[in-house]
Amino acid sequence: MEQASLCDLNEPLIDHAEGQFFLSEAFKIIMEEVLSNGTDVKQKVCEWKEPEELALLLDLGVRETGEPRDKLLQRVRDVAKYSIKTSHPHFFNQQYGGVDYHSLAGRFLTEALNTNLFTYEVAPVFVLMENEVLRALRQLVGWTEGDGIFCPGGSTSNMYAMNLARYQCFPEVKSKGVWALPRLSIFTSPESHYSVKKGAAFLGIGLDNVIFVKVDDRGRLIPEDLDEKIELSKSQGAVPFLVSCISGTTVQGVFDPLDHIADICDKHKLWMHVDACWGGSVLFSKKHRHLMKGVDRANSVAWNPHKMLVAGLQCSALLLKDTTNLLKQCHSANATYLFQQDKFYDVNLDIGDKSVQCSRKVDCLKLWLMWKAVGSVGLEERVDKAFIHARYLVEQMKKREGFQLLSMVAPVIKERMMKQGTMMVGYQPLGNKVNFFRATVFSPLLSQKDMDFFLDEIERLGKDL
Amino acid sequence: MEQASLCDLNEPLIDHAEGQFFLSEAFKIIMEEVLSNGTDVKQKVCEWKEPEELALLLDLGVRETGEPRDKLLQRVRDVAKYSIKTSHPHFFNQQYGGVDYHSLAGRFLTEALNTNLFTYEVAPVFVLMENEVLRALRQLVGWTEGDGIFCPGGSTSNMYAMNLARYQCFPEVKSKGVWALPRLSIFTSPESHYSVKKGAAFLGIGLDNVIFVKVDDRGRLIPEDLDEKIELSKSQGAVPFLVSCISGTTVQGVFDPLDHIADICDKHKLWMHVDACWGGSVLFSKKHRHLMKGVDRANSVAWNPHKMLVAGLQCSALLLKDTTNLLKQCHSANATYLFQQDKFYDVNLDIGDKSVQCSRKVDCLKLWLMWKAVGSVGLEERVDKAFIHARYLVEQMKKREGFQLLSMVAPVIKERMMKQGTMMVGYQPLGNKVNFFRATVFSPLLSQKDMDFFLDEIERLGKDL
Repeated sequence: MEQASLCDLNEPLIDHAEGQFFLSEAFKIIMEEVLSNGTDVKQKVCEWKEPEELALLLDLGVRETGEPRDKLLQRVRDVAKYSIKTSHPHFFNQQYGGVDYHSLAGRFLTEALNTNLFTYEVAPVFVLMENEVLRALRQLVGWTEGDGIFCPGGSTSNMYAMNLARYQCFPEVKSKGVWALPRLSIFTSPESHYSVKKGAAFLGIGLDNVIFVKVDDRGRLIPEDLDEKIELSKSQGAVPFLVSCISGTTVQGVFDPLDHIADICDKHKLWMHVDACWGGSVLFSKKHRHLMKGVDRANSVAWNPHKMLVAGLQCSALLLKDTTNLLKQCHSANATYLFQQDKFYDVNLDIGDKSVQCSRKVDCLKLWLMWKAVGSVGLEERVDKAFIHARYLVEQMKKREGFQLLSMVAPVIKERMMKQGTMMVGYQPLGNKVNFFRATVFSPLLSQKDMDFFLDEIERLGKDL
Repeated sequence: MEQASLCDLNEPLIDHAEGQFFLSEAFKIIMEEVLSNGTDVKQKVCEWKEPEELALLLDLGVRETGEPRDKLLQRVRDVAKYSIKTSHPHFFNQQYGGVDYHSLAGRFLTEALNTNLFTYEVAPVFVLMENEVLRALRQLVGWTEGDGIFCPGGSTSNMYAMNLARYQCFPEVKSKGVWALPRLSIFTSPESHYSVKKGAAFLGIGLDNVIFVKVDDRGRLIPEDLDEKIELSKSQGAVPFLVSCISGTTVQGVFDPLDHIADICDKHKLWMHVDACWGGSVLFSKKHRHLMKGVDRANSVAWNPHKMLVAGLQCSALLLKDTTNLLKQCHSANATYLFQQDKFYDVNLDIGDKSVQCSRKVDCLKLWLMWKAVGSVGLEERVDKAFIHARYLVEQMKKREGFQLLSMVAPVIKERMMKQGTMMVGYQPLGNKVNFFRATVFSPLLSQKDMDFFLDEIERLGKDL
């Protein structure tokens, strides 16, 4: 070894005192810019810049040499300044608006502890905690036993359910691939999330084998049509294996009639999956849980507490009724460098082989800490209030002259609100309906005046159109 | 609407002042327990508890009602106390040890800003930043153009490459599934990461269609055997489509001979993927980048800056040479509620349809801020130092009497170190070799005395065995 190298060995490359000072200063900026100004209704939701201008302002390029502390802190401030304030009460744009400070504390702690959920040895607290949180969520579904896992988002949870359903019917798929199987078919509503299609393509099943069932005029899957489509698919030589129901569609918030669908699944012996990524949180509410009546008859449920419960991105649970260790059988690869069988503790606590990921982030702590902080009662209150806000908004809209639920001018209004930075709300067409605004109003930071602001602002922005 | 409900509308459910106070107190605990005590060599790496005892100590159960602030802060402290200190200099257990404070500041900011990477409208800063970071990583690979995406871990990056390779050969797989394709085959080394197997199973290709190529006595894939295995597979009626090479195996850190493998891929017109999740960071080092000579000839590279560069979990980039928008064509579902084509800005900035995820976390900011802070030169220094540490360790082991690279008693030594909490290092068997310790020594917090401690401690823990 060269002498020069030996010298390098004596000191670490990172100075803790300097690093911790930087982190503390960055924390102050986060508190000020993101959490104080960013949630203040007198401040903007977004500071719109055209892409070319923003790239220049941020000076994004990385270089050979590093930068001094003050410059880096200015960068932290700039990133905060030009980013969307998703916790702002006037961010009605997506299903992850709002902030919960207990959850956020859990997220900071998760980041600082920086570990993976594959073995008890590297994540003793989180292996046990995830287990407990999954148990509590399953209990709300109505199951006293079962399995589950946190996934990086609802699309992945839905895809896992699809793979598990396929494996349960045809375990040989794991070794031999889809070639060894008859042609499979999946049934879902056209209002369901696009992840059903993405999952079918990714898993080698194919988009053509996703069969769309008719919906009624409220957008709910029609069980009779499901039954017919299953029979038709069978008669065409395919093997139906999965019905992917939805509790809370992305655009309209519709809940499929789970109980009736469960009857059809029973009849044809199909895996019943419920994509409750958006709607699952109604299970906390005595008033609204009837929307998911029959969910306990499902085989699997995907539920994202990062949406209506404001647990923070990402927090997506896949819950399973299964008690046969299907998750591990389906996904395991038995890597000897992680899952040694001669360990000094119960190796069933090494849950990493339940996942197709190797590194899997800890997503349970933020939900657990928030749940401990406000209790099931506090989470119920959030759900109930989201419904009250939605209802209030609809009633007020009906009262306002010239205010229509559907709008031909949505793109123009959207451009104006973004450039003025006063508010953010998404729009889209649906079926043969023209563009309309979809306001998500579940954030625990909201109150009635924000609902009124929403209506006034749409009127103001569109008054000359 | 009931009168009772109307009252509830007037106030938000969250008190910002109280929430921000809690977050500040939690931050202090994180600084003290995780970042100060947790990196202090005089403190333990882990506070071992049996699972039953730990569950009791943590009081994991969630309840109907919430808890007061002090109790919640104690919970933050407890979670920190009983979690593994992965930033501790004596955590040699996994490829994500250590901490970088600039990265950590970026992670806190990411969590606070809480957004998704699907559209420019909700993530203007991060859409541009991810693009720039991917460009800079591709430049290190040797590509002046191309594409890429950050994935939730290296397994997902590897799986994406597999799906893209399949789609490029047989685009009909997306609509018709694997049934429309001939039987496919994949080639890799038996030393490659288990995600190649997991990916093949998940994508419906099947474990039996992953063909293992012979390695030489250092563990490097033998190109001549690859050529033969490809010919054999063809003669058996399969269609080879992908070679998954590895740069830095998980257990031994071996680099496959990419340049020679590229010749074979050229000859047979196969997609060449390089799993450089662990080893990719050598591309920063003028001294060590020769280990990946030929990487620029690959079609795709998976690279996890959360490993050797200490960017924090997760940070995994999939880099593509492709310039035909293959990623989007392969994964898109064109959801109208997100990817409206009548937006007021360039919709090519809406990158969400490149992913099979819908919600996708921001993983670029932590790497970008760290890169800005220390420059490419600083990252090069980390890589070079990791090699120096590894070499020092091997040389010292050779010098010590009775110290063997292989150990029959690894499980016992491991149990002792965990229960005493002095150190963590992983062990495993390999091929027909018995258990041995695999020390990861890349953390920028390490210095020579930590290497010496490692050796002394193994001797101390095993002296009576």
